[in-house]
Amino acid sequence: MAYKDRLLPREKVFRDPVHNYIFVQHHVILDLINTPEFQRLRRVKQLGPTSYTFHGAEHSRFSHCLGVYEITRRICDIFQRNFPSKQNNDGLWDDSQRLVALCAALLHDLGHGPYSHTFEHIFHTNHEDITRRIITSPNTNVNRVLKTVSADFPEKVASVINHTYPNPQVVQMISSQCDADRMDYLLRDAYYTGAQYGTFDLTRILRVMRPYDGGICFDISGMHAVEDYIISRLQMYMQVYFHPVSRSMEVILSHLLLRAKELSSKLPTDSPSTPYMLMPFFNHHFDLKDYLKLDDGVLNTYFLQWCDNQDAILSDLAHRFLDRRPFKSTKYNGQNKYLIKSMKEIIKKVGYDVKYYTATNNSFDLPYDAYDPKKKHHTTQIELRQKDGSLVELSTISPLVKAVTGKQLGDERFFFPKELLSTDNNIEIFQPYYEKFQSFIKNDHIINQKGER
Amino acid sequence: MAYKDRLLPREKVFRDPVHNYIFVQHHVILDLINTPEFQRLRRVKQLGPTSYTFHGAEHSRFSHCLGVYEITRRICDIFQRNFPSKQNNDGLWDDSQRLVALCAALLHDLGHGPYSHTFEHIFHTNHEDITRRIITSPNTNVNRVLKTVSADFPEKVASVINHTYPNPQVVQMISSQCDADRMDYLLRDAYYTGAQYGTFDLTRILRVMRPYDGGICFDISGMHAVEDYIISRLQMYMQVYFHPVSRSMEVILSHLLLRAKELSSKLPTDSPSTPYMLMPFFNHHFDLKDYLKLDDGVLNTYFLQWCDNQDAILSDLAHRFLDRRPFKSTKYNGQNKYLIKSMKEIIKKVGYDVKYYTATNNSFDLPYDAYDPKKKHHTTQIELRQKDGSLVELSTISPLVKAVTGKQLGDERFFFPKELLSTDNNIEIFQPYYEKFQSFIKNDHIINQKGER
Amino acid sequence: MAYKDRLLPREKVFRDPVHNYIFVQHHVILDLINTPEFQRLRRVKQLGPTSYTFHGAEHSRFSHCLGVYEITRRICDIFQRNFPSKQNNDGLWDDSQRLVALCAALLHDLGHGPYSHTFEHIFHTNHEDITRRIITSPNTNVNRVLKTVSADFPEKVASVINHTYPNPQVVQMISSQCDADRMDYLLRDAYYTGAQYGTFDLTRILRVMRPYDGGICFDISGMHAVEDYIISRLQMYMQVYFHPVSRSMEVILSHLLLRAKELSSKLPTDSPSTPYMLMPFFNHHFDLKDYLKLDDGVLNTYFLQWCDNQDAILSDLAHRFLDRRPFKSTKYNGQNKYLIKSMKEIIKKVGYDVKYYTATNNSFDLPYDAYDPKKKHHTTQIELRQKDGSLVELSTISPLVKAVTGKQLGDERFFFPKELLSTDNNIEIFQPYYEKFQSFIKNDHIINQKGER
Amino acid sequence: MAYKDRLLPREKVFRDPVHNYIFVQHHVILDLINTPEFQRLRRVKQLGPTSYTFHGAEHSRFSHCLGVYEITRRICDIFQRNFPSKQNNDGLWDDSQRLVALCAALLHDLGHGPYSHTFEHIFHTNHEDITRRIITSPNTNVNRVLKTVSADFPEKVASVINHTYPNPQVVQMISSQCDADRMDYLLRDAYYTGAQYGTFDLTRILRVMRPYDGGICFDISGMHAVEDYIISRLQMYMQVYFHPVSRSMEVILSHLLLRAKELSSKLPTDSPSTPYMLMPFFNHHFDLKDYLKLDDGVLNTYFLQWCDNQDAILSDLAHRFLDRRPFKSTKYNGQNKYLIKSMKEIIKKVGYDVKYYTATNNSFDLPYDAYDPKKKHHTTQIELRQKDGSLVELSTISPLVKAVTGKQLGDERFFFPKELLSTDNNIEIFQPYYEKFQSFIKNDHIINQKGER
Repeated sequence: MAYKDRLLPREKVFRDPVHNYIFVQHHVILDLINTPEFQRLRRVKQLGPTSYTFHGAEHSRFSHCLGVYEITRRICDIFQRNFPSKQNNDGLWDDSQRLVALCAALLHDLGHGPYSHTFEHIFHTNHEDITRRIITSPNTNVNRVLKTVSADFPEKVASVINHTYPNPQVVQMISSQCDADRMDYLLRDAYYTGAQYGTFDLTRILRVMRPYDGGICFDISGMHAVEDYIISRLQMYMQVYFHPVSRSMEVILSHLLLRAKELSSKLPTDSPSTPYMLMPFFNHHFDLKDYLKLDDGVLNTYFLQWCDNQDAILSDLAHRFLDRRPFKSTKYNGQNKYLIKSMKEIIKKVGYDVKYYTATNNSFDLPYDAYDPKKKHHTTQIELRQKDGSLVELSTISPLVKAVTGKQLGDERFFFPKELLSTDNNIEIFQPYYEKFQSFIKNDHIINQKGER
Repeated sequence: MAYKDRLLPREKVFRDPVHNYIFVQHHVILDLINTPEFQRLRRVKQLGPTSYTFHGAEHSRFSHCLGVYEITRRICDIFQRNFPSKQNNDGLWDDSQRLVALCAALLHDLGHGPYSHTFEHIFHTNHEDITRRIITSPNTNVNRVLKTVSADFPEKVASVINHTYPNPQVVQMISSQCDADRMDYLLRDAYYTGAQYGTFDLTRILRVMRPYDGGICFDISGMHAVEDYIISRLQMYMQVYFHPVSRSMEVILSHLLLRAKELSSKLPTDSPSTPYMLMPFFNHHFDLKDYLKLDDGVLNTYFLQWCDNQDAILSDLAHRFLDRRPFKSTKYNGQNKYLIKSMKEIIKKVGYDVKYYTATNNSFDLPYDAYDPKKKHHTTQIELRQKDGSLVELSTISPLVKAVTGKQLGDERFFFPKELLSTDNNIEIFQPYYEKFQSFIKNDHIINQKGER
Repeated sequence: MAYKDRLLPREKVFRDPVHNYIFVQHHVILDLINTPEFQRLRRVKQLGPTSYTFHGAEHSRFSHCLGVYEITRRICDIFQRNFPSKQNNDGLWDDSQRLVALCAALLHDLGHGPYSHTFEHIFHTNHEDITRRIITSPNTNVNRVLKTVSADFPEKVASVINHTYPNPQVVQMISSQCDADRMDYLLRDAYYTGAQYGTFDLTRILRVMRPYDGGICFDISGMHAVEDYIISRLQMYMQVYFHPVSRSMEVILSHLLLRAKELSSKLPTDSPSTPYMLMPFFNHHFDLKDYLKLDDGVLNTYFLQWCDNQDAILSDLAHRFLDRRPFKSTKYNGQNKYLIKSMKEIIKKVGYDVKYYTATNNSFDLPYDAYDPKKKHHTTQIELRQKDGSLVELSTISPLVKAVTGKQLGDERFFFPKELLSTDNNIEIFQPYYEKFQSFIKNDHIINQKGER
Repeated sequence: MAYKDRLLPREKVFRDPVHNYIFVQHHVILDLINTPEFQRLRRVKQLGPTSYTFHGAEHSRFSHCLGVYEITRRICDIFQRNFPSKQNNDGLWDDSQRLVALCAALLHDLGHGPYSHTFEHIFHTNHEDITRRIITSPNTNVNRVLKTVSADFPEKVASVINHTYPNPQVVQMISSQCDADRMDYLLRDAYYTGAQYGTFDLTRILRVMRPYDGGICFDISGMHAVEDYIISRLQMYMQVYFHPVSRSMEVILSHLLLRAKELSSKLPTDSPSTPYMLMPFFNHHFDLKDYLKLDDGVLNTYFLQWCDNQDAILSDLAHRFLDRRPFKSTKYNGQNKYLIKSMKEIIKKVGYDVKYYTATNNSFDLPYDAYDPKKKHHTTQIELRQKDGSLVELSTISPLVKAVTGKQLGDERFFFPKELLSTDNNIEIFQPYYEKFQSFIKNDHIINQKGER
């Protein structure tokens, strides 16, 4: 039998707190999990600095990737049981697509590095691009395993992740507005943070999913389950992913890496204190091997060393990050954004370098979007299938979803050192400055002198 | 008001997936949590290599310590509501003991380093001793915070952890056969692994706990809840903590650190490849500052570097650990232990250094013990309080607990490379050796030539 | 000590699957639970015919009432711990209000009879009115227990349920848009049906509730928890409470009781087949004692007897109800409502009495409403408290809640016998009629001849 | 296609709080669920008077029967996927057995009447016998549905329930020491009571179950899951099923029915107060139709009527049952059983008829048993399958199970009116008698004059 179709003599399971068990039935899946490139994901946290706000959220990208694989596997099982293709192009599920779907699901986040969002911002890396390179580069173990299926299999898997694979059902399983990726991370992040907003009825959503020639749609009987998923997602963004304290820790991390990068040119090239695993990134010359050496622990190890660095700003920011001393923040809007300049001046007067000790940052998300011919980037809208087989777009019949469709939700915040909010007259000589600063803020929002937002 | 009694203007909460919320009411507790020494615990996994078996178990000692604090806080609340002391030595709860209990609960694991069990074994460190040093040494932030309560407060907290504190109720809250420490780790490890065996009825156990002059006892109406806790604990040991794959990864880790230590004398003292954060431990000269720099990420960073080391054994073991390639193992007993020698000889013949590629290891636990005047080390037995106020020891009335009382449960295993179990005649020239090796094993147990265990 | 303040020597607990434990601390509460009037609630299902759709939903009003009590008790505890009144009219929590709040919470549903909604509709009873009568009538055990607190205590408790009690905090605990009643039934109905939409974060909502002089408001930090509650409520209505099959069973029940009532005048007054426990209701002359004899089992017992009745319609409807044979239904709207007349004519032609075998029924709910001076009946809107103490109404800052504010959600349905949807040409002589009937329906909605809704 | 094999065009689901969804795929299963005989089970509580102790436990036998069906269906699926029979008598799973297994699972409790245990005791009915009669009698709807499969199908289904069906795998699915029946009721009763002791890892147990020629065994890798199930079962018996208050309510129910039976001969045969639905049972002449009319509500309706009966004992016991006023109780043993006579004399002196107001009652259960050639009735022991395919009996390798094997656990109790425990000297003229009575009891146990048990 071809390797491609080789099943394990007995299915293997991984105990998973979110999905109970993750079932592995194919040799190739087990071999992929056992590659060093995939095992590296154990050492990269899924939510990065969010664990500074929700201490339970210490799970890794490894767990999440297994979860996405498992949801995809269940979708394939249900599709094959209830909607098996009987002839070409009948819009039903062709189970020969299963393996490429499973591999793409498992590997879709393979290129994530430590503190991915911030790291990419500072070093101009791109995790999607790196994912594709790990899959298609002939030097990786992942590539070698995939090629045992067929010579063009790595490219196929990459094209699913790249959204260019011809079968839209396979692509939408992994990437659409209600896909295995999002469903796993919402459930998993809710479980590990302890936030209860992210839970929705996965079993029911899987039950109402069905293939059609344009991709994947949902039986109309499950509309409320899909609604609930959209709302849960919105709630997780507002409550967890956009939490001001996590964003504050990201600001510190970002400034810390920036400072290190700026100092790097002055570093001796070969001393114990040289962050040599980071040097390829400081110099913008890295290869896949350099990248695959990185994980959260490596970065933290350098941060620990930088705590003793003679550069006061580098040392202080490293301490703030490791010891969890976040900046404070306040919301602002377009009307009063101009006031930040005055606030920064006060911060400068009390002794801070505003380049490293202040920041503005916005977090916005589009909870759901419908197709709009005027827009450039088209997301796949959610289609509900009526009794007579016709499709109807979700927001046209759900008042709840309509209410959030196309709306960017989130806020813009200005970050600054905690001391600025001090209220203790007896101790601080800077107290008058602090009070001036505080007069710009009311109910967590910057206000002008008339007290208006 | 004295700092000691200062409560936060509004209680602060931490979202926790196990206890829902952790409530912080005292300034001193919040200040302790914010020390660098306590924040370091975020970077040390609670279960070490167990996450290689149960991938969800990625939680840190930080989470566990908050959990032990919270259970202790709830016990204090219940004791104060239902059993407040009215006069000295009435055997009821004296709420002036609350703060020392809470601090000891929070800090009891402060001295744990990375991969604690294995690290201690190789480098002869002792986490309990280090916990006490962090608390009592004048140079730590923890000590400074504790001293704001009173000059002798650090010593008091240390003495609770040390079991020498005069009030047995406080000591038993943190350390006894049914204490806040064990209750949190069972629930937490069960939650994060996804194993369901560790769950028991915490609310009910807290409800039947009560203080008496000898410490803490349990109302007899809660006997079954206590039984259930004992059995859950036993199940977690058998199913999770003693899992052969986790122990196998510990064996690899242990041999990896041993090899590095042995090679360390030959290392150049000042090169990028020198593991200088580990050198104090290789040399058995470390101070508290050296120790507090260590975490899982630091060790893993060295392991990543060792993957490229020219020493083949160091490099191979580092790869096996990071890439998760465990040894296989089999049970043995006293009768057939002698056969391991022959098995090792085969392993040697196929090319392995048996010092690094084999190991024996036993894991035993005493699920419950009653007082026995003949024994040297006395554990605190569990006492049930009858309607008339008299106490009765748990195992005397619970047949279930009696069945496990004083019994060491667990097994002894012999570890070896996976290849030895190969069954594929076509590929391996060593196949005859492998077959000989396999003739020593049946049903996961070493057997002699007659097929007997 | 006055009875009013007498606490039980040790608090008593009831194991509850939703709240884990229900804690009873006052003698008067325990005595109320033990009255026959309250115990009767064990024999009245909380959700009536909904258990025909969600078979797990077999819980009683007894369980729900305990749950409302428990949530109220927790609110009192939190208010007393965090916001205790220090002087008259300071807008904080006066704990002398605790007992009246607890009693009102426990007793608020005391007057519910069997299949309350339908029963009231047919027999023109009113459960709120009966609740007040049970509390204030001198002949009930409940009244006797309440009077041991003080002579005017029954009237006080009744006035809380009646919304005329002077303290708005007490009234709003039991009755407002986010009260103990609704919070318990959402959580409980979700637990027993197995629907996951009804869950929300009770602990967090309780934590952000706070008293003010106008009643109860919520700290703005808990806005998302309140949002989630509103949405959960909406989902439960759409998914569970408005389920077409449950409404269909209610239609059958309603017609069955109607038929029995119409036949009752012809019944012999004293035969074994006379439903004499129902006669006072058929005759519109009942007293409290008659009412308190009724429960689900009594009604079902008569239905069992009516199965053998010589009146074919009574017998058939009784069978349909007990054996769960619901009508089918389809949605309609104002535009095509007129078509129902034609559909009824077909139903008549195939032999059914349309008075008993068809029905129209609408189910609408207002998920949330804000104060509107133009409206007659004012609901209490949800107020969020900002950092500076000012209040802001929920829908003004939550886009999600704004989307559903003031909107009636639900549908109108036309019910008819299942046979009308038959598609089997071979068996039924009425098949041409059935096909004509079916031409009025598409995608679960009545359409006109052009196929339009 | 034969009716037997007809699958529903689309599988139907029932939302279930314990199993999430119950999947119905066969026409015959859906038709069985829709029979009046099966729907009757909605009106019979699973746990009878236990809901007086655990108020949440209001679930019906209907829910349980669906649950047993669902577990059986999952076992069939797993067996068919992993262990499909390839030739006759190969000891693997023959999927042509699926339908008989599913029907037997669904119908195994069909003959249960209201308050089954007590009812059978008083009226000498037998629910197992009645189950068989409902299945095989030509006049029931259940029989008619089953016969559409084949003429001998009802007998086949009955023989599975009767343990005489030739295929031991099918029999053991429904009835053995770890079967679908027990697994469902433990999980369900735990869910509805809120007791947490009954939970175990169903998914894992199903995963390690496998067919063999002697029936069903378990892979040795799942030993701890099976252990956990045994212990959970033991805990549910000790904590829930044997709860003294539930047993006390059963005593009252039993005495109430006994009194009614004794009075029945004196009743007028045709008056509104005649319990004519019970008369066939009072007279020991009932047919299936009489039996199928009974449910909890019918009995409760008579109890409500008896509250006004002129017989003081009948009326009082009816009130005690409906209003939940249990007797108190105390444990005794063989040594001091003789003292009950003296205690009864006191009870008589204070005015009670000891025949109706006292009782002795024991509750014992055998948590697990292994085969013992000396015993008459053989239970099926639990067999674990080792790597080499050989079987080993559970208690020989599990110390935990060995500890409870063959042991009857439980207690004997003496029940009496609550007043006997009164301690209030001021009110009761019988107080000296009460005190004498109380001198027989210490720590919930009867003691002799020396204070010994």
